[in-house]
Amino acid sequence: MEEILVIHGPNLNLLGTRQPDIYGSATLEDINAEIESRAAKMGFKMDFFQSNHEGQLVDKIGEAGARAIIINPAVFTHTSVALRDALEAFSGYVVEVHLSNIFAREDFRHKSITAAVADGLICGFSLQSYLLALEAAARLIQKTE
Amino acid sequence: MEEILVIHGPNLNLLGTRQPDIYGSATLEDINAEIESRAAKMGFKMDFFQSNHEGQLVDKIGEAGARAIIINPAVFTHTSVALRDALEAFSGYVVEVHLSNIFAREDFRHKSITAAVADGLICGFSLQSYLLALEAAARLIQKTE
Amino acid sequence: MEEILVIHGPNLNLLGTRQPDIYGSATLEDINAEIESRAAKMGFKMDFFQSNHEGQLVDKIGEAGARAIIINPAVFTHTSVALRDALEAFSGYVVEVHLSNIFAREDFRHKSITAAVADGLICGFSLQSYLLALEAAARLIQKTE
Amino acid sequence: MEEILVIHGPNLNLLGTRQPDIYGSATLEDINAEIESRAAKMGFKMDFFQSNHEGQLVDKIGEAGARAIIINPAVFTHTSVALRDALEAFSGYVVEVHLSNIFAREDFRHKSITAAVADGLICGFSLQSYLLALEAAARLIQKTE
Amino acid sequence: MEEILVIHGPNLNLLGTRQPDIYGSATLEDINAEIESRAAKMGFKMDFFQSNHEGQLVDKIGEAGARAIIINPAVFTHTSVALRDALEAFSGYVVEVHLSNIFAREDFRHKSITAAVADGLICGFSLQSYLLALEAAARLIQKTE
Amino acid sequence: MEEILVIHGPNLNLLGTRQPDIYGSATLEDINAEIESRAAKMGFKMDFFQSNHEGQLVDKIGEAGARAIIINPAVFTHTSVALRDALEAFSGYVVEVHLSNIFAREDFRHKSITAAVADGLICGFSLQSYLLALEAAARLIQKTE
Amino acid sequence: MEEILVIHGPNLNLLGTRQPDIYGSATLEDINAEIESRAAKMGFKMDFFQSNHEGQLVDKIGEAGARAIIINPAVFTHTSVALRDALEAFSGYVVEVHLSNIFAREDFRHKSITAAVADGLICGFSLQSYLLALEAAARLIQKTE
Amino acid sequence: MEEILVIHGPNLNLLGTRQPDIYGSATLEDINAEIESRAAKMGFKMDFFQSNHEGQLVDKIGEAGARAIIINPAVFTHTSVALRDALEAFSGYVVEVHLSNIFAREDFRHKSITAAVADGLICGFSLQSYLLALEAAARLIQKTE
Amino acid sequence: MEEILVIHGPNLNLLGTRQPDIYGSATLEDINAEIESRAAKMGFKMDFFQSNHEGQLVDKIGEAGARAIIINPAVFTHTSVALRDALEAFSGYVVEVHLSNIFAREDFRHKSITAAVADGLICGFSLQSYLLALEAAARLIQKTE
Amino acid sequence: MEEILVIHGPNLNLLGTRQPDIYGSATLEDINAEIESRAAKMGFKMDFFQSNHEGQLVDKIGEAGARAIIINPAVFTHTSVALRDALEAFSGYVVEVHLSNIFAREDFRHKSITAAVADGLICGFSLQSYLLALEAAARLIQKTE
Amino acid sequence: MEEILVIHGPNLNLLGTRQPDIYGSATLEDINAEIESRAAKMGFKMDFFQSNHEGQLVDKIGEAGARAIIINPAVFTHTSVALRDALEAFSGYVVEVHLSNIFAREDFRHKSITAAVADGLICGFSLQSYLLALEAAARLIQKTE
Amino acid sequence: MEEILVIHGPNLNLLGTRQPDIYGSATLEDINAEIESRAAKMGFKMDFFQSNHEGQLVDKIGEAGARAIIINPAVFTHTSVALRDALEAFSGYVVEVHLSNIFAREDFRHKSITAAVADGLICGFSLQSYLLALEAAARLIQKTE
Repeated sequence: MEEILVIHGPNLNLLGTRQPDIYGSATLEDINAEIESRAAKMGFKMDFFQSNHEGQLVDKIGEAGARAIIINPAVFTHTSVALRDALEAFSGYVVEVHLSNIFAREDFRHKSITAAVADGLICGFSLQSYLLALEAAARLIQKTE
Repeated sequence: MEEILVIHGPNLNLLGTRQPDIYGSATLEDINAEIESRAAKMGFKMDFFQSNHEGQLVDKIGEAGARAIIINPAVFTHTSVALRDALEAFSGYVVEVHLSNIFAREDFRHKSITAAVADGLICGFSLQSYLLALEAAARLIQKTE
Repeated sequence: MEEILVIHGPNLNLLGTRQPDIYGSATLEDINAEIESRAAKMGFKMDFFQSNHEGQLVDKIGEAGARAIIINPAVFTHTSVALRDALEAFSGYVVEVHLSNIFAREDFRHKSITAAVADGLICGFSLQSYLLALEAAARLIQKTE
Repeated sequence: MEEILVIHGPNLNLLGTRQPDIYGSATLEDINAEIESRAAKMGFKMDFFQSNHEGQLVDKIGEAGARAIIINPAVFTHTSVALRDALEAFSGYVVEVHLSNIFAREDFRHKSITAAVADGLICGFSLQSYLLALEAAARLIQKTE
Repeated sequence: MEEILVIHGPNLNLLGTRQPDIYGSATLEDINAEIESRAAKMGFKMDFFQSNHEGQLVDKIGEAGARAIIINPAVFTHTSVALRDALEAFSGYVVEVHLSNIFAREDFRHKSITAAVADGLICGFSLQSYLLALEAAARLIQKTE
Repeated sequence: MEEILVIHGPNLNLLGTRQPDIYGSATLEDINAEIESRAAKMGFKMDFFQSNHEGQLVDKIGEAGARAIIINPAVFTHTSVALRDALEAFSGYVVEVHLSNIFAREDFRHKSITAAVADGLICGFSLQSYLLALEAAARLIQKTE
Repeated sequence: MEEILVIHGPNLNLLGTRQPDIYGSATLEDINAEIESRAAKMGFKMDFFQSNHEGQLVDKIGEAGARAIIINPAVFTHTSVALRDALEAFSGYVVEVHLSNIFAREDFRHKSITAAVADGLICGFSLQSYLLALEAAARLIQKTE
Repeated sequence: MEEILVIHGPNLNLLGTRQPDIYGSATLEDINAEIESRAAKMGFKMDFFQSNHEGQLVDKIGEAGARAIIINPAVFTHTSVALRDALEAFSGYVVEVHLSNIFAREDFRHKSITAAVADGLICGFSLQSYLLALEAAARLIQKTE
Repeated sequence: MEEILVIHGPNLNLLGTRQPDIYGSATLEDINAEIESRAAKMGFKMDFFQSNHEGQLVDKIGEAGARAIIINPAVFTHTSVALRDALEAFSGYVVEVHLSNIFAREDFRHKSITAAVADGLICGFSLQSYLLALEAAARLIQKTE
Repeated sequence: MEEILVIHGPNLNLLGTRQPDIYGSATLEDINAEIESRAAKMGFKMDFFQSNHEGQLVDKIGEAGARAIIINPAVFTHTSVALRDALEAFSGYVVEVHLSNIFAREDFRHKSITAAVADGLICGFSLQSYLLALEAAARLIQKTE
Repeated sequence: MEEILVIHGPNLNLLGTRQPDIYGSATLEDINAEIESRAAKMGFKMDFFQSNHEGQLVDKIGEAGARAIIINPAVFTHTSVALRDALEAFSGYVVEVHLSNIFAREDFRHKSITAAVADGLICGFSLQSYLLALEAAARLIQKTE
Repeated sequence: MEEILVIHGPNLNLLGTRQPDIYGSATLEDINAEIESRAAKMGFKMDFFQSNHEGQLVDKIGEAGARAIIINPAVFTHTSVALRDALEAFSGYVVEVHLSNIFAREDFRHKSITAAVADGLICGFSLQSYLLALEAAARLIQKTE
């Protein structure tokens, strides 16, 4: 059974508890559960990881043995070269994902440092972004089997 | 039956004929056929349009009565404010799609003028980008029904 | 009888039909009618042209035999050097006009490539922008008679 | 009887006396007289003010009770945030006007800091710029009556 | 009895009269009265000065014999090198103050030319900004006694 | 009893031990003690936190239940979008504070990413910056009671 | 017999008719005739195409079966990524040509987006630019035979 | 007897009184006396003017009937387009002068907006800068007699 | 016996395991062993530290009692002001080192924020970079003995 | 017999000896011989000059009495204002030439400082660039005879 | 007898021979003769040096034993850091001089790299620039005697 | 016996004679002697070259037959593309060296044009920089034997 690692960047732990009027009442656990349920049907083993610490994200990617990483780097998208280098060193597939459409937000959120070393990017479909990323990762894995 | 309009920007008509070593041997017709087949199962009526003319793309969007537009603006992504304004005036959903990961290419392809007025963006998964965009559009439409 | 050519750029054909809550319910035909009526009293023969195609606008200007052009280049204001060069080659008067105050909108709409080769610019008075431009053109023509 | 305030920025007091070969022999008084004459026919009471002092212009706008201001900020167009904020605080209409086409001059004259808080802008028609601005102001006032 | 000079920059004279829905109904006189009352308890003699004229502000600072200046340069914060140099030549303490948080406003209000020569900056607490600045000035004066 | 959280960013733990000739001999503990003593008189319960880890600062803010945060983000002021987003999601008041006047230091220290989401900023008064921030926070809290 | 395609960009159709005092009285037809006459002696079959429409130029290049393209992209030199991509996909030789020396004109005409994908560039020799380009193309073709 | 006007910009009135350790103990009056004495020997009538008000400087230049202006615009050198335009409209000679070498100071003092419309510039020789400027002005006047 | 601290930044823990075709098969442990062996002969006591966490690196430097630090900040070279400030507060010598020549890589790797506070920089000699840095540190220490 | 001067800039003396796999085995002498042979048939007397010294190139141009200069400034193309000014002062024709297509190389090679004062530019055709430049120069000379 | 060294940069050897309509018919020898004659009366021994070679200028300054250097670096003003460093190492006075007003010419001539290490700058008075520089140098020398 | 060439750029000939308080009293000859002595023990034949002329440095590198070049390009580090290209064409090893830490000096000294084509860079250790470079060069040579 192939493993896929889902990584959530800084402040995503606050989903559903802070600013629910803006981000909705679904928590990160709810999102993970939905992904897990879908993945189970597709035959993937999932691993989930959230951290506000750039170093922990880099550690996790450095140790990762998964076939693919689905990563929402959150604000590290725009600032972290360390994350970029960790993802570049990872030998599996990488799908970058965002809940919101980063191109429709403030200027400083329009550029992605990490996307340059990902296979592809999906953003703007809230929870569905993750589920589409799961399908994208699955197809990338199947393509090489 | 809901209609979804698929728009392909400049030079995409050359797919499969020019530079097949780079872009593969699948033609735009092959891609459209695959999308159509998938859409038929999902219950959508599809309309396909390709043009190298910014004006024709703007005309088409201005006349469009579809529930959603899946658009690969190709190089107009980075330069066409006219396309951006046409998409902004369109009342349905807009999903921007790219065959390649534009963030892994030349610097001038990293910015998207059109994505700012789209609902979301999917790039980097070649043909699968379109099929994932179809699913994304379907879910956006279902959400409001 | 002197002729004045009125040129409308991309997406202006959507006036009154798309986003009426923002742009009002007056169509481009309504605007043209109002201009025509005023021009008739002033003794000018009017020609109207709208296109979403930069090439058609350039063609039209290249063939124009009018004494003056009133042009709302819309988004081409900010991007089209081709339009700029066509207007520069035109031997009559050129008045640039905008429905909205472009300086009160997004940053990328603050600069005008085409205004540099126009005689003057009028913006921000919606329909009245066109009528003031008609008066401006009339006075420029009278000055040289 | 509605009042309209006409404000002339720095160095405009030199019109007709300095560099007459470039700017013509009409003085600022001549221009004001022409505006007053036209305004009288339209039923407006006019107030005229010229100063080379940014502070006096800000003072004048701060005390203004007119329905509209027609302002030629001259070089303050490109540099004065103080003027911009004074105009923004003014509750009536604001029409910015320039004798020359600022977009056809040196690069540093292409941007307008003040236009962002005006209702509209008219430039390039020399004396006629003011008369067209008067008509523009009149129509803005009529629209809200 | 030590003297502290409070300087208010352009357009602050309009407080309470223009745009009361945004800036509240307190006038500059109300603010000055509140500062004076507090200062009296602290044993300071206050001098207040407001001007829309950069030159008058520079004159005032050049003649100032106070132990400290509390200055709200308003828009001159972002543009006036003359004010900066006048404050640099002043031998007492300088506390820069703003009613609003300038970093939460438009981009051009994020930089302060004058703060570089002040001892410190306090912004974002409306009237309280001035009162905190008074306390700050008092402590700077006490430190050197 | 209302709680106020005081957060100190990277390298502030070195106060009093490294470079005492520049930063003085007061340690961070001394500063906290002084704040606590003042706060006790004002009736606030204080919580203090220092970390060199961006992630720990983000964690702390994410879990914070205080009415207000007084934060000296140190160098993260200029670089950390993660901190900015954490503060934006926090529902209480935020006062940014700096020991030195950041506008009088190197260019890269002139911009504050975090201040944009704070209520206000106080800088340049060394230890007094914190005490003034405490008063500012107190007044913000009182205003809404 | 080898075919060479000559493409003329926007506004070049006006040669000889508009601004003859600047650009001379030779029309585009005159230029084409001169090229054709020279090419006939060299044993090449020529195809000529002019358009003000970026889309038509892209279409034409996409369908081109010639051994080489001599292209004067006119203002599209500086703006059209679509043209650049079409030329890059073309498998024959590409020689970019300009009547004037673009480096001696306005700043915005100094950069060439299209030249990056051409084999070489010739500019500044008016009609002779085309004839030199013809010789250049001939030598490139001969080199590979 | 030819007249030469000497203009001193903002904060120069503080010479000799503020920061004497840096700028020396000579006052502006001392400098003017020295210039006058030298000019008397050369046969020129001098007029001196100092102001911290940009508007007064512009007024003065606008009314000036002198053969030449020697101007030390101080900080307005780097910011005042109004001064630049006033000097440009002046029909006599203009010599810009600075006490210090502006190119050896902060970056923002390296550019001169006003020098572009002066005949020449002399800086870095403290009081001697003025005396050299007087000689320069004298020679320019003699050249045209 | 003098102590030298060797610090390795993010992703250097992956040396020898990830991308061995690019970075070789030597692990960080191999590198440390080689340094230790050389240092032993030179009479230095070594301490080694690797972390992907900016905060841990800052902590470590803050607590360091060594005579010199040899640091390979990896990607933090280009982004971490926190590291820069920690190194600046450190009272011993600092030698910055890189395995690769950072000036021969991507543009964003050409600037070093941390080098500004180091004594010197050595890069481009892979493992030898560290050994040369050890010699450099030794000579700096000897110079002050 | 008209004379044409051919100037080769820095490092072109290495042609054929250094990096022959990239630049081919033809030496600068081979190129000069080919040019000379062609020129002899056209009736021109040739002078050849190569130097790595900007000063020698400037000297040579300053003394040149030729009807035209064909110059390959090599890297001085992008940096030498001295060369630019020397060429501007030269009264004959100037044709700039490059072996490679400078627009297809690194960014810093895309701009030409010298081309602004040349009559035209030819690049990208290796040895043929020089022969085409010879023809271009010949036609410019003939045009004025 | 004190010695003053006069240095003329690239292309100044062409004065009077190239472009006499622009630069006049006076040669560099004429200028030097005029300077020498004036200097003789003032009691200075003069040394003159002209070169188009940056290296020769740097050599000359490095060997110079004069009390002052009067240098017209010509285009090296804007580009030569080598010249700047040579002048900085020179222990006597440095006066930078230009025939024309560099601020009234092309943008790239507005900045002076060398002026930052000169005592002062004089430009815009053609030959008189040198004579004024001689007087300036004389006064600097006298000041320290 | 392998040869290593040591190249010193502009103004380094002044070491020990100009500004000894800053750069020390060791002359370039002293430095060369120290390098030679060390190299003799390591079995290398050394060649030393200093010039203030970019062209002579380029000539020297073009003729060099050494196994490695140790170069201190001094200010040419930041400006000379000619040097960069000469070094790139050199087939041996290249080690760039600086006496001072260029990253701790003025901004314009932070970028190295030449380092991009070197094998490595060593800076900040004064004379030791050269000796470390010698060791670095030795190890690069040994690696390939």
